[in-house]
Amino acid sequence: MRLSKLGEFGAIERIKGICRPAGRGVVVGIGDDAAVLKVPHGGMTLVSTDMLVEGVHFDLSYTPMGALGFKALTVNVSDIAAMGGRTRYYLTSIALSPDFKTEDLDSLYKGMEEAAGRFGSRMVGGDTCASTGPMVICVTVLGEPAGVKPVRRSGARPGDDIYVSGTLGESAGGLLLLKAGAGGGKQRDKGVDKSAARLMERHLMPVPRAELGAELGRAGLATSMIDISDGFSSDLMHILQTSGVGAEVEGARLPVSRGLEGVFGRKKAAALALHGGEDYELLFTAGRLKRKAIEGMGGCVRVGRVTEGGGAWLIGEDGRRVSITPKGYEHFRK
Amino acid sequence: MRLSKLGEFGAIERIKGICRPAGRGVVVGIGDDAAVLKVPHGGMTLVSTDMLVEGVHFDLSYTPMGALGFKALTVNVSDIAAMGGRTRYYLTSIALSPDFKTEDLDSLYKGMEEAAGRFGSRMVGGDTCASTGPMVICVTVLGEPAGVKPVRRSGARPGDDIYVSGTLGESAGGLLLLKAGAGGGKQRDKGVDKSAARLMERHLMPVPRAELGAELGRAGLATSMIDISDGFSSDLMHILQTSGVGAEVEGARLPVSRGLEGVFGRKKAAALALHGGEDYELLFTAGRLKRKAIEGMGGCVRVGRVTEGGGAWLIGEDGRRVSITPKGYEHFRK
Repeated sequence: MRLSKLGEFGAIERIKGICRPAGRGVVVGIGDDAAVLKVPHGGMTLVSTDMLVEGVHFDLSYTPMGALGFKALTVNVSDIAAMGGRTRYYLTSIALSPDFKTEDLDSLYKGMEEAAGRFGSRMVGGDTCASTGPMVICVTVLGEPAGVKPVRRSGARPGDDIYVSGTLGESAGGLLLLKAGAGGGKQRDKGVDKSAARLMERHLMPVPRAELGAELGRAGLATSMIDISDGFSSDLMHILQTSGVGAEVEGARLPVSRGLEGVFGRKKAAALALHGGEDYELLFTAGRLKRKAIEGMGGCVRVGRVTEGGGAWLIGEDGRRVSITPKGYEHFRK
Repeated sequence: MRLSKLGEFGAIERIKGICRPAGRGVVVGIGDDAAVLKVPHGGMTLVSTDMLVEGVHFDLSYTPMGALGFKALTVNVSDIAAMGGRTRYYLTSIALSPDFKTEDLDSLYKGMEEAAGRFGSRMVGGDTCASTGPMVICVTVLGEPAGVKPVRRSGARPGDDIYVSGTLGESAGGLLLLKAGAGGGKQRDKGVDKSAARLMERHLMPVPRAELGAELGRAGLATSMIDISDGFSSDLMHILQTSGVGAEVEGARLPVSRGLEGVFGRKKAAALALHGGEDYELLFTAGRLKRKAIEGMGGCVRVGRVTEGGGAWLIGEDGRRVSITPKGYEHFRK
């Protein structure tokens, strides 16, 4: 069936049927002029929003609807995690062609709800409308700090260590494979095929570091934090600029997976790790005295240190210093 | 200048320059992964979101950028008012062509900030990205109930009076004029020209009933409330369906302006008032004992009463009953 047959109100009913009923804290959920949420005593609300546009952020020729729904929510969950918070609620506004299939609508919202269930979020509202062009999804999430205060981008201090979670560049690698029409027969052997599949999955269904972000916030360990959406080089620069500091990053410490190296070779893999976007790993700084605590949490790699200023430098194994230039994605630029 | 030259981060800096600095209650505003908002002790948060798509919700051939920005926020302020609440914060996500002019970007956000200043809202975040097709604006607003609890759609009880604020159908009339290429020489005399201009303005820059909605919420006068965005017939039906009641509306009481009648004639004006959307007036119900209090507030017209059930009826001056069929706008329908 097409949306033109179902109509807007039919589509809303269908979406309501897919989403879990609103839980704890939701006074009014989907279906009124606004959602009404109970807020803990004297608390703080975190709110973030991200818009995904077909042809800019995603390509439906290789993106399954369920993965798209999953990603539309997780990129926002990642923003809340990067504040040291937990996601509680979400709203989804969407513009769709009247020819959009209702089965695809189901898959899209099921993907969102899969992410919502996994990362503790409930749908409380949104907007559903027609589009004359590309499909557009705008998700807004609300959450709360896991600790006494949120972790900002601006708190990095000279002498702090710099950490990243997980491995870098895989999402960008996966995107290159997807654009080249991978899944097909270009790879040389089964091991590479498996690695390629993993890279593509990281691009299509990124898993935000929800638990780690909340734990860093709860324990008050990070002095600054951001999620890697634009790319390590760009997102590091966001922290350095807002904090008014510089950085030295040890190139050999940047976590690159064997899979990425296997598919792209060492040099290209290193460039993808440095500049590739959409890994949704966390990039954060912490005082040197917290090293043990952070190592104890597992999954984080120390990649460098914050300096007084003087820009961002990549230190090679031979000691050579190369200036880090942000090469992440920037909208509108040609 | 075009956005392609300014770039995403340049655009964000420009927007930050236009928006007033975040005020009371904003711990972290624009420029981090999420905004952080202080919430009053044990309070409730209202949140609503609306997406506007070029070619569906607005036509740039007759919509000034400043008006579009103003409207993008006010349609959301109207949703919060319809819950008996006050708007506090907003986030704007926007997809624009790289060829979009920076002067238009300025006008758009100045229009938003004009509405924000007027209705007590501060920008705390958003997303700015490229579009491959139509311009898309998605505004999310956060607010709080003005009274002890929000006013829902579902609280109408048999015997309640039905009220609307202001006059109906003017926005739909204005849209017809704009689509017909008005502002031109079709009108017969100056009085009609002035009326036509008023109708077009109501469509382009709707003024939400922010104060009235908050006052009804604060005083606990309304049993149910909605804002008229789809059209009186459709929005009344939303209240009746969620409340499980029926209604009798006196046709002669539906507030129609002389201007609308002057431009379109009595019959067409009455149809526009009944079904036309986007007036952003409030439609609400209240117990009969509240009549004096509501009359004392001014600006509201009693148009009918809630019945046990049996659908919605329009009562003519001759006593004839005609079933009210929702004919408001529905997305995806052809």
